[in-house]
This record gives sequence, C-alpha cells and structure tokens, in this order.
Amino acid sequence: MTEEEKKEGVAAVAEVSNKQVVLKAYITDGRAPRKDDMAVTVSTLPELKAPKGSGGFLVKNLYLSCDPYMRGRMRPPSPASYIPSFLPSRPIEGFGVSEVVDSDNPEFQAGDFIAGMTGWEEYTLIQKPQQLRKISRNHAVPLSYHLGLLGMPGFTAYCGLYELCSPKAGEFVFVSAASGAVGQIVGQLAKLEGCRVVGSAGSATKVEMLTSKMGFDAAFNYKEEADLDAALKSMVSQHAVTDSGPGIRNISNVIVKRIKMQGFLQSDFLHLYPRFLDHVTAHFLAGDIVYVEDVDDGLESAPAALAGLFTGENIGKKVVRVVPPESRNSMN
Amino acid sequence: MTEEEKKEGVAAVAEVSNKQVVLKAYITDGRAPRKDDMAVTVSTLPELKAPKGSGGFLVKNLYLSCDPYMRGRMRPPSPASYIPSFLPSRPIEGFGVSEVVDSDNPEFQAGDFIAGMTGWEEYTLIQKPQQLRKISRNHAVPLSYHLGLLGMPGFTAYCGLYELCSPKAGEFVFVSAASGAVGQIVGQLAKLEGCRVVGSAGSATKVEMLTSKMGFDAAFNYKEEADLDAALKSMVSQHAVTDSGPGIRNISNVIVKRIKMQGFLQSDFLHLYPRFLDHVTAHFLAGDIVYVEDVDDGLESAPAALAGLFTGENIGKKVVRVVPPESRNSMN
Repeated sequence: MTEEEKKEGVAAVAEVSNKQVVLKAYITDGRAPRKDDMAVTVSTLPELKAPKGSGGFLVKNLYLSCDPYMRGRMRPPSPASYIPSFLPSRPIEGFGVSEVVDSDNPEFQAGDFIAGMTGWEEYTLIQKPQQLRKISRNHAVPLSYHLGLLGMPGFTAYCGLYELCSPKAGEFVFVSAASGAVGQIVGQLAKLEGCRVVGSAGSATKVEMLTSKMGFDAAFNYKEEADLDAALKSMVSQHAVTDSGPGIRNISNVIVKRIKMQGFLQSDFLHLYPRFLDHVTAHFLAGDIVYVEDVDDGLESAPAALAGLFTGENIGKKVVRVVPPESRNSMN
Repeated sequence: MTEEEKKEGVAAVAEVSNKQVVLKAYITDGRAPRKDDMAVTVSTLPELKAPKGSGGFLVKNLYLSCDPYMRGRMRPPSPASYIPSFLPSRPIEGFGVSEVVDSDNPEFQAGDFIAGMTGWEEYTLIQKPQQLRKISRNHAVPLSYHLGLLGMPGFTAYCGLYELCSPKAGEFVFVSAASGAVGQIVGQLAKLEGCRVVGSAGSATKVEMLTSKMGFDAAFNYKEEADLDAALKSMVSQHAVTDSGPGIRNISNVIVKRIKMQGFLQSDFLHLYPRFLDHVTAHFLAGDIVYVEDVDDGLESAPAALAGLFTGENIGKKVVRVVPPESRNSMN
C-alpha cells in the first residue's frame, strides 16, 4: 500500500507479488523468436482472491507449455491470423496446468486442477476460460503430461493420424520432427495400429531416442542426410518463416507422387477430446506409450525455453515448471 | 529405293515421306521449352502399310495435343519420372486423334478414328496402344475435342473435381489457369453442380472469356492483382521449375486455412473414363458446356505451339491440326 493509503487509513491488505514473462515488442520480420524478445517482470496482485462479481477464478500456474505455434502470436495483429497476437508488455499466454486458488465461478473451486489457456506468470485471473478442462487427478499420470501427451500436442497427433490419415496395418508412416511434442505420439500411435514408422529429427540423441525408447522402426538425422531435398529439411524451422527462406521448390512432387497435404488445427476437432483422452490415457497406463518431456524450472527460464524450440534445443516436449515440487502444498 | 536395290531387281515400291517433329536434345536445367528445342525433319516410310506380323496399325495423324506435362518428358531419363523421357532425334509423343490407314491388328481397321498416344509426325505405326480408344464419330462433336473436352484434359478436370473435391451446391470453387485445357472444364462442371466459381488467368482476353463465354461468376488477371501472393502467381509457369525460382513460401497457410492439397494423375482413374465420356458428352450436346480451342495448322507450327504453353500464348486448349480439312478424304 502507498504512503497515501496509509495516511487515509485504508485497511492494510498484504499485496502479493506476481512474476510475469512479457513480450517486449512484436517481431516484425520472419526470424525466429529470441529469448530477449521477452522480459521477466514483477507486478502485484492486491490479494489472492478472485474479485467478487467477476465470475472468474484465480489460479496458481504450475506448468507452462512451450509450443511452436506461439511464434504466430508474436506477430503484429495485422494481418489477423487464426489466433490473436499477444499484447506487448503483457504476460504471454499459453497452455498451462494450474491450481485454482480462489473462485467467483460456481463451476470451479479452490483446489481444482485445470489445464487450459493461462498466463506466463505466477497467478492468473481467468475470466473467459479457453479450451479449459478440469483434470481428474490420477497420480500415475504426471500433471505436466496434460500439456503434452494429454494436451494440445497429443490431441493434434491423434486428430492428424486418425481423422486425416486413417492408418491401416502395414502402411508406412513417416513423421518429421518425430521426437517433438506431437511427433513422438504420432509415431507411437501409428505403431499401435500396426504401421511401419520412420521418423526424422535433428540430432543423434533424438534419433537414438526414437528407435530405442519410442519403438520407431527407423529414424534418421535430417541434418546429416546428404540426399534429402528441401522438403525434408524444412520442418519446425519453417515456423518462423514469412517471406524469407528458400520456400518449397519441389511442389510438383505432390502431383507425381499423388501426395495429399492437408492442414488442420486441433481446435477443429474438440468434440473428439474425450475419446482422445480415454484412448491415450489407457495406452499410457498400459505401458504402450511413453512420453519424453524436457522441463526447465522457474519463470526466469521460460524465454530461453520458448526460443530454444526454434533451434531444436529441446529433447521432447518443452515444459516450464513454475513452482518446484518442494514448495507446493498439494500435488506431486 | 536405293541404287543397290534397283541393281538387284527388287520390285519398285513408292516410298512415302513422313514429316516429323523431333526433340533435338534434352533440356538439362529448369527452363521452359523453346521452339528451337525441337526440329521438323522428314523421314520416309517404305509404304502406307502396317508390316505383316507386327500386330500394329498405321495411322495418319490428324490432330496433336500440346500439353504442359510434356515438358517432363524433355528431361534426361535419370532420375526417372512417372512417364519416360522422349528419345532425342525421335518424334515427340503425345495425345493425338488419328485415322487408321492400314492394320495388322484385328481390333482396328482402316477408316477407324482413334484417340491416344501417337507420334508428332504425319504417320505413326502403333504397336503398343497406350490409353487409346476408338472414337464413335458424332458429327456434333469436333474430332479435335477428343484431345481436350473429351480427352486427357477433360478427364483430368472430371477426376479432380468429382473424385478429389466432391463439390456441393453453394460451395466456392477457385480455378487457376482457368481458361486452359483443364481449367475451363473444371469451372463449367462446378457451375453445373451449383457452385460459385472464380477463375484466374494471365490476360484480359482470357479473363473476359471466362465470365462472358464460360459462365464463371468472377475472374481476374493474376498478373495484374497487386495483393496476390506467390502461391497464386505460380501456376502453369511452375511446370518448368526444378530447383530454380522462388518456391512456395507461404506453405504455413495450408495449416491455418485448413487447406487440402492433393496430387493426382488422371491415369489413376481410367476406370471412370466411360462415365466421364457419357457425362461430359451429354452436357456438351445439351449446350451446357462450351470448349475453346486454339488451333495451329501444320506440323511446322508444332514446336512454337508447345513452347507457347509456357508463356501463356494459347487461349484455350492448344491443338495442332496436322492435315487441313480440305486435303482429307473422310472427315469433317
């Protein structure tokens, strides 16, 4: 409270500091994000409460998800994309796993765990829940897996494989960025369908992981294969490209090789989310699917964690753990 | 006959000259074909007969089709593509409409009209018929239309529209290269399905033709639209590209706009050819579909006719008429 408030005799309330990761300014060219595009700042909350009448609820963020699509939100708001740009100087938004601290919404209560869109900060007041679900706690499933295996990336893998590709036993499946948040699930689900699965990734460690840990039939390092053309070399690295870079020059292969290239967003298929959760959770609990995460600790690590996606530094799904386990009250 | 044959007393037979369009040499870079990549030469046939025991039949070629895919056959034979390279110094091959002159094959008789793969020459001995069909003469359908409306381009339009796109009334259909051999049919078939159809082409004349003659709802000149990106500007011009040129840089639109890009070859669907012929012939005879051809006379015009496809000089389906109507015996 300010000196003025003290003079006026306002009742003293303990303010709470709220560390945040903010976007400093929009990236106006086609480059990949850098950690210094973001800054870690500290703001304050008047108290750990959801304001009465707000209809919202205050959450403590536990895990934050670093995803390549977030690059698109670092662009200026015009021309508009499928998802709004971030606001400069405001906390970055992304998928997170959070615990409800206080609620003015009858559907959520303190102690509930949720996964959905939240802020890159310690505490977030959520007033318009986006793609949000309550987590049924199952101690066999790490909470952070709700950002990957059971979150948007896993659901993307599920929709792409089953809804667009309809794999049949014996078919060949090739997965690029195969050790990433989505790719590792695509490959393992395809193996469960009886497909022969080949993956590519950008380091020897990742390639080894694909065959030894995730059961891919074969894998290769696309940076070291001399005879691969531009199409195979442009994978996650293309996320930042606007009008620079080489582009895809062998597009005529789409005709000659009868290729179907189909774009989708997981959000087009949200009605399938419950079926996805049942399917993948069951296979995970049965030991049929493994999931590799790459976890950094603390909000201070978040800018480098996000930027590292675009240089391939993460091995598996990149997650920022906001609150170290030893300082929590109520969870694993 | 040679001097030696005369000395040996061989019976004199009237040789027949056979003008041919040959490929001079393979095009080894990514450029478009030029008319001087081809030459017009004259060879001879001993007589206008299919050799006994050959199982083949000799045809007189009436119309030859100029198609963009033929650029792919001007490449060196390695790496192999879906269709073999032409042979240097030998007549170019392509779709043609021909009349059987003599036959050693019981399925074909002198006087039959056929459409299928033939040589760019006056007479061709066909021993292995490829995608060949006899034409049931209907004087309401110009013979040359069997190269376009009722030939490979029309069938490509039919397969692409019905088998891959499954148009429904009220949907929007965009056709690039819309005044070309395939595009004009795609647009008119889509209109018959109740779609709203927009086409792009490369000149004011072509654009005007799309709306005034072919019933497109709207059309524009892609060379004059300032706000079109690289994807719209790379149409037939991309046929010659190998690894030069700008490539496609806005491929991320495939995801955001949920685009399905699917390659196919009409030859994958040949079982549908009879159904296509019935469908399109009926609509043509009913006056629902028009077809615009751009016809040049004489084999001498063929090299420039083929090269002109890649600079957009043709207005409609490009055809070379080998034999002017006044010098024929038996057809329109």
